[in-house]
Amino acid sequence: MSTLSASPNSWQSRFERLRQDRMFELVVVGVIIFSALVTGAKTYDIPQQILTLVDILDYGITLFFLTEISVRFFAEQRKRDFFKSGWNIFDTLIVAVSLIPVQDSEMAYVARLIRIFRVLRMVSVIPELRLLLNSLIRALPQLGYVALLMFIIVYIYAAVGTTFFASINEHLWGDIAVAMLTLFRVMTFESWTGVMYETMEVYPFSWIFYLSFIFLNAFAFLNMLIGIVVNVMEQERAEERAEAMQNELTLQDLANQIAELKQLLKQKS
Amino acid sequence: MSTLSASPNSWQSRFERLRQDRMFELVVVGVIIFSALVTGAKTYDIPQQILTLVDILDYGITLFFLTEISVRFFAEQRKRDFFKSGWNIFDTLIVAVSLIPVQDSEMAYVARLIRIFRVLRMVSVIPELRLLLNSLIRALPQLGYVALLMFIIVYIYAAVGTTFFASINEHLWGDIAVAMLTLFRVMTFESWTGVMYETMEVYPFSWIFYLSFIFLNAFAFLNMLIGIVVNVMEQERAEERAEAMQNELTLQDLANQIAELKQLLKQKS
Amino acid sequence: MSTLSASPNSWQSRFERLRQDRMFELVVVGVIIFSALVTGAKTYDIPQQILTLVDILDYGITLFFLTEISVRFFAEQRKRDFFKSGWNIFDTLIVAVSLIPVQDSEMAYVARLIRIFRVLRMVSVIPELRLLLNSLIRALPQLGYVALLMFIIVYIYAAVGTTFFASINEHLWGDIAVAMLTLFRVMTFESWTGVMYETMEVYPFSWIFYLSFIFLNAFAFLNMLIGIVVNVMEQERAEERAEAMQNELTLQDLANQIAELKQLLKQKS
Amino acid sequence: MSTLSASPNSWQSRFERLRQDRMFELVVVGVIIFSALVTGAKTYDIPQQILTLVDILDYGITLFFLTEISVRFFAEQRKRDFFKSGWNIFDTLIVAVSLIPVQDSEMAYVARLIRIFRVLRMVSVIPELRLLLNSLIRALPQLGYVALLMFIIVYIYAAVGTTFFASINEHLWGDIAVAMLTLFRVMTFESWTGVMYETMEVYPFSWIFYLSFIFLNAFAFLNMLIGIVVNVMEQERAEERAEAMQNELTLQDLANQIAELKQLLKQKS
Repeated sequence: MSTLSASPNSWQSRFERLRQDRMFELVVVGVIIFSALVTGAKTYDIPQQILTLVDILDYGITLFFLTEISVRFFAEQRKRDFFKSGWNIFDTLIVAVSLIPVQDSEMAYVARLIRIFRVLRMVSVIPELRLLLNSLIRALPQLGYVALLMFIIVYIYAAVGTTFFASINEHLWGDIAVAMLTLFRVMTFESWTGVMYETMEVYPFSWIFYLSFIFLNAFAFLNMLIGIVVNVMEQERAEERAEAMQNELTLQDLANQIAELKQLLKQKS
Repeated sequence: MSTLSASPNSWQSRFERLRQDRMFELVVVGVIIFSALVTGAKTYDIPQQILTLVDILDYGITLFFLTEISVRFFAEQRKRDFFKSGWNIFDTLIVAVSLIPVQDSEMAYVARLIRIFRVLRMVSVIPELRLLLNSLIRALPQLGYVALLMFIIVYIYAAVGTTFFASINEHLWGDIAVAMLTLFRVMTFESWTGVMYETMEVYPFSWIFYLSFIFLNAFAFLNMLIGIVVNVMEQERAEERAEAMQNELTLQDLANQIAELKQLLKQKS
Repeated sequence: MSTLSASPNSWQSRFERLRQDRMFELVVVGVIIFSALVTGAKTYDIPQQILTLVDILDYGITLFFLTEISVRFFAEQRKRDFFKSGWNIFDTLIVAVSLIPVQDSEMAYVARLIRIFRVLRMVSVIPELRLLLNSLIRALPQLGYVALLMFIIVYIYAAVGTTFFASINEHLWGDIAVAMLTLFRVMTFESWTGVMYETMEVYPFSWIFYLSFIFLNAFAFLNMLIGIVVNVMEQERAEERAEAMQNELTLQDLANQIAELKQLLKQKS
Repeated sequence: MSTLSASPNSWQSRFERLRQDRMFELVVVGVIIFSALVTGAKTYDIPQQILTLVDILDYGITLFFLTEISVRFFAEQRKRDFFKSGWNIFDTLIVAVSLIPVQDSEMAYVARLIRIFRVLRMVSVIPELRLLLNSLIRALPQLGYVALLMFIIVYIYAAVGTTFFASINEHLWGDIAVAMLTLFRVMTFESWTGVMYETMEVYPFSWIFYLSFIFLNAFAFLNMLIGIVVNVMEQERAEERAEAMQNELTLQDLANQIAELKQLLKQKS
């Protein structure tokens, strides 16, 4: 605010105007989509010349992203606030990592992965998607305990399964990790009868194992759905009540007014 | 309204009466169902004589549809309004296209397709189905952003999948389009363990790729369901409030009346 | 009510007492469960002696059911009312059919089927199940139009599928009936990629056919769910309003009382 | 409460302090997780030395659990109340059973199972999971009648299936138990078309059997979902009403006050 910082201030306001420009936003979204298409194009067999072109484009995209993040950084009045937003840190990380020069053939995979994750910037640029992802993250703890309960169910069934079925099929029930993967497969109903018929040849009553597992999981899942619906309804009700408190008179207000009237009448008599 | 247009006007009102006739509606629905059956019958091996009969019937149906759309067009008071309804344009298009003579054997497929799409007219004729389809179309934007988020998830996973698994199975992970189809297959749990076991032989930890993909999608889908329920509830609440405003007295009205009473009492004393 | 009908009346009241007896109800449920077990036992290879015993038991069950339905019939005061209940007609039909003597070996299947359907009497005897089934039947028309829309979608896709894919796989796309069955299979995600990969060899873009079909159906299904939730909420709201009307004073009543007060005050001045 | 019991009383209060200690709770959870990991570790091929170590750890865990349950028992003021909680009985049972010495090789399986079920103690220790399980158990009766209805449907279809298809595939339709398992498989859409195509070769119209079965079950399931949502909403409404009764004045209170006013006015005139 001092006269000394006037010159950089004017730069900052220029950047700020640029950042808030709708045109600039569309260009950024456009470049990200183009970047995603380039990433996709590389998975096809393309002639060397076009590949070189694509590499140059890739370089250009990295430069553009660097510029864009700089514009947003310099547009911020207090530089420290820039890193208070999780989305800004997310964007900076992706851009910073794509600047690391990767020539080594062993690291080529890493370089590719970084380029792919640039597509994720689509989420940080489009406000509606950011809102959606935020609500997804907010719902996580709510689902956490159901997930823990399901994990315990799968763990116990996997331990039981390994104990009895390991000798029948080493590939499916060999150790507890493999058994948990097999049980997740049973949960998705993917060829689960094949798994069951195999163990039923040795233990004819092992269908109880699979059916109880499926019903327990279905039941836990159903319970989660009900929990979510109840939760949503309670939030709605709380909002409704808060709204009612702000806007309207309560019956208590009316009762007070009537009491005043009574007082007036009594005073007169 | 002038006396000059009296004669055509009487024609128009006759058409209008015909259009609103319940009998006429039932006949139209009947012909559409018959047209659908004829379309279905052609997929069976039928003797040449009956095929000729079916072709004649087909010709008759086209003629009937042309008549019906004309009736509805002439029944309209202002001809321009006819094309303001999406359903009218839809019907006219289907009828117009079925009038194009297709003799060429290469175009035979197109002719067949047009005849099949005549079944869609069922939707435009039955009011309840029109209502249902309208509500389907209204719900589209609401689902749009979730679909976009899911598309981004599938795109990123497809890019990662192509990078690592293309050399393992060209048929499933060859390029980004094929990989996206494979991932949609994993989403529907269709033989997804076969796909997973194959890549786990090369990358033993690739189960993380599949499980995280399945959980992310299930989570986005769950979030969409919650979003829809919340939306429905908010609409209901808004309707409820609008209703309450119209029909009932508010507490404010009562408070005003009590204040008047107080005024009266004070005036007297 | 006349003295002449006193004697039959006393019989009727005895039957009525028997029908309302909790013990009698439990015995009926017990016999139905026993009848179901006998039906199930016959599917195992059992020695001839036990089979004879089972046949005798079967005969006994039929006699018991005949007695039970008679008791309920004679317990009814006005015999005509007995056939006004759908459940009574249902029970009478099952009992009547099981009385038909079936010796012919060709009719043996029919006799077996009748005995199986006796298990359905469980639903008519347990009141909670009757309630559940009634609510299932009430929900039917609500689902009807969505089912019709889905049928139209399947029909059109089946017609298109037969046109293009009949030459690829006669077994899956040979005629419209077979194609509809194949599409229902795709809807349940049962080996749908196998069906798709086969046609993609001839028409590489036929994945559009399958994916659009899956999305359209998922969308119609989602819409139905929303429709049901909205419906349930509206019923709840209507009940709530009806309740509020019965039990409580409305604000209008209060306003009337205040107006009376005002009148009183004005009369005095 | 007498002076004689002062000394044991002080012991009890010490135990009570220990039981309510947060540190103690965390240690218990830690030991349970460690116990689960040990159970899991045993499913891998591990050298004899580590196995001996694991066995000693196992012994230690059993001792620790015994100590913990004793602490909780002695912390209880009235010993009888300890066994009023289902969770305490559950914990005591698991600990008691793990104390039984199992050396016999035939009983080794049982010993393993007991150790696995110790993981279930996680649920009894973490309060949030206990809450979740309680709500799961409360929801059971609500689902009971739908489950019974579905069981009757499956039973009847299994009886019909065995009657007609037993000669086609003994393995799938041999007796009523096997047929019910096959039908449960059809319900999960697991290779159900394979089952259907097989019987369609003998009975071309047997697709009606499968499709009607799938639709009936889907319908019963949908109905259950609606029932649960309605139930949840009614509970919410009841809570809302109970809340409204406690906190606020009713319109009746206001009406009474206005009536008093009227009385006052009338007395004066």
